[in-house]
Amino acid sequence: MSKTLDLAQDLIARRSVTPDDLGCQELLISRLEPLGFKIERMRFGDVDNFFARRGTASPLLVFAGHTDVVPTGPVDQWHTPPFEPTIKDGMLYGRGAADMKTSLAAFITSIEEFVAEHPDHQGSIGLLITSDEEGIATHGTVKVVEALKARGELIDYCIVGEPTSSKVVGDMIKNGRRGSLSGKLVVKGVQGHIAYPHLVKNPIHLVAPAIKELADTVWDSGNEYFPPTSWQISNMNGGTGATNVVPGEVTILFNFRFSTASTAEGLRERVHAILDKHALEYDLQWELSGKPFLTPKGTLVEAISAAIETAFGVTPELSTSGGTSDGRFIADIASQVVEFGPLNATIHKLNECVGVADIEPLKDAYRLTMETLLT
Amino acid sequence: MSKTLDLAQDLIARRSVTPDDLGCQELLISRLEPLGFKIERMRFGDVDNFFARRGTASPLLVFAGHTDVVPTGPVDQWHTPPFEPTIKDGMLYGRGAADMKTSLAAFITSIEEFVAEHPDHQGSIGLLITSDEEGIATHGTVKVVEALKARGELIDYCIVGEPTSSKVVGDMIKNGRRGSLSGKLVVKGVQGHIAYPHLVKNPIHLVAPAIKELADTVWDSGNEYFPPTSWQISNMNGGTGATNVVPGEVTILFNFRFSTASTAEGLRERVHAILDKHALEYDLQWELSGKPFLTPKGTLVEAISAAIETAFGVTPELSTSGGTSDGRFIADIASQVVEFGPLNATIHKLNECVGVADIEPLKDAYRLTMETLLT
Ligand SMILES: [Zn+2]
Ligand SMILES: [Zn+2]
Repeated sequence: MSKTLDLAQDLIARRSVTPDDLGCQELLISRLEPLGFKIERMRFGDVDNFFARRGTASPLLVFAGHTDVVPTGPVDQWHTPPFEPTIKDGMLYGRGAADMKTSLAAFITSIEEFVAEHPDHQGSIGLLITSDEEGIATHGTVKVVEALKARGELIDYCIVGEPTSSKVVGDMIKNGRRGSLSGKLVVKGVQGHIAYPHLVKNPIHLVAPAIKELADTVWDSGNEYFPPTSWQISNMNGGTGATNVVPGEVTILFNFRFSTASTAEGLRERVHAILDKHALEYDLQWELSGKPFLTPKGTLVEAISAAIETAFGVTPELSTSGGTSDGRFIADIASQVVEFGPLNATIHKLNECVGVADIEPLKDAYRLTMETLLT
Repeated sequence: MSKTLDLAQDLIARRSVTPDDLGCQELLISRLEPLGFKIERMRFGDVDNFFARRGTASPLLVFAGHTDVVPTGPVDQWHTPPFEPTIKDGMLYGRGAADMKTSLAAFITSIEEFVAEHPDHQGSIGLLITSDEEGIATHGTVKVVEALKARGELIDYCIVGEPTSSKVVGDMIKNGRRGSLSGKLVVKGVQGHIAYPHLVKNPIHLVAPAIKELADTVWDSGNEYFPPTSWQISNMNGGTGATNVVPGEVTILFNFRFSTASTAEGLRERVHAILDKHALEYDLQWELSGKPFLTPKGTLVEAISAAIETAFGVTPELSTSGGTSDGRFIADIASQVVEFGPLNATIHKLNECVGVADIEPLKDAYRLTMETLLT
């Protein structure tokens, strides 16, 4: 009989498809209030968020996560109903089981155990919970962080409960994420009939050597924590469909995933330099959707790594791979941020699940981290 | 009072938007039958065509043209109703005035005058008329040519009445046209999330150097009659719209306009060699929509050039520029093919027109050519 498993099931039973919370947060709050947490509900647009804090002292250790889940996909391809948590063959099935309702449950029960044992712990415990992580993420963590930043409430340590484990739980934590910088490039030419090549300037021909150079460029070599920065075109479209017309322009969408070895500003300048070198006439709109963040080895990484070793008997690898996460926003007000949670093999897929046997150790890993940092 | 102007107006008054003939051909036939022409109506699919011949001897001189016209575009932007032929300020306005109902009228009246004067002319006079030149051109000239070829009825001289004049009527005849060879190239890569660049192969990146090489290639230098062969991309599309996915393939539509200095087969081989050199995985579908044709200086070019000089006081320049025409099909069974007709400035546009003063000389130029070749 596990309190964490019970709470995870209660959360999964709520159909909280992004950005709907459907009472998940009130369920968490009902467990935090008796522990002496001060609760701040922060609704932005149609998104429920809350920030909770127990204590006023430093250091502040925050557990961050989201109650929203991605859509189920075709329900008839699930072996069990996605919003009816089901235990079968040692696995707990349900949408959100891995991403990330089990982590939320483990946050709560680890805190309950820790506070019971250390009612007068050092520092403060916080929770930063959103229901807008799987959607466009404009009214969630980013807004809560803005509110905290505005009043100078900074975070010392943050643990994001994202499913970071790869083959066995505990084998990987994310101690950083690459930044994401996108560009919409429109290269101009001169449109005309394909039979009169001397009257046209073909923008697809003109941009090809620049694409080659951009694709061949080594932007950086990465560093101890990051793979090299990568540049990829996601979309390229030119032409009206007519086969006898040279198009007047071509549109290219591209994206950098960049490490702390580069800056967004530096990458922008180098792209412009290459386009200008090729004498292209163009418009280029940039969008920085996330700066890279990095938490080098130090207090938080060491505390959670040791806790994982104790709880799972596994030494976690540090990684900064994968997509962006809400860690990018939190890093703006947090000195150290790491992400740790269940296996990510089934997230966003049919028959999402976690191993039942991994649930208590997950709670223990979070609790042991508090033991190290707050006692 | 001009018979040619009258007939041109009668033709323009018929709303023969491609591929509809709406009685234009029967009007022409009604003028040819009294002159002793043998008429063969050839309807293919929904397209009216006819071949007419007066005489059985060689040489056979054929006038070729089309009764169909392109759509009007926005009628309220015409100064006069497009299917009500209107003379204003010395111009005859109406859809098809320049392309090519005035030429058809001049064919008929020049033949009427010539036959009246030379009822026992040498050789034969032919007309090859379609109503499917402005459309997809699959049931028109190409089919009539097939029928003639099948029975061994070959053409010595062919005059296509397309509007070839540029600044003043008579300044340009087309003595050839470039070929048109199209390709649909699909370059394969490996699709994947943009955050995992080591798992993807970006087909847009891979094809860029090949595009550069294809665009930089000198396919030939042209020759006395042709500009160099040109290669142009008309459309390039890759990506699903999603900005975080590297596409699995990219589709490129391209087109050669090629001279008699190259062959379709040779161009195909060279493109494959470049794509293979760049180690691309691809599918490539070819379509040859027209072989190049050329009528060097000789009997027909000299006859029509001299006739134009007499009729217009202008020395025509030989040209092979511009798009494809039905000449590409006729050249398959004709030794010599030239195209000559009115100014092309207003064709396919609003307020299409011809100069009224140019109509009688056009008829004279056609008649004088018959004088040279058939007497
Ligand atoms: Zn998540
Ligand atoms: Zn035409």
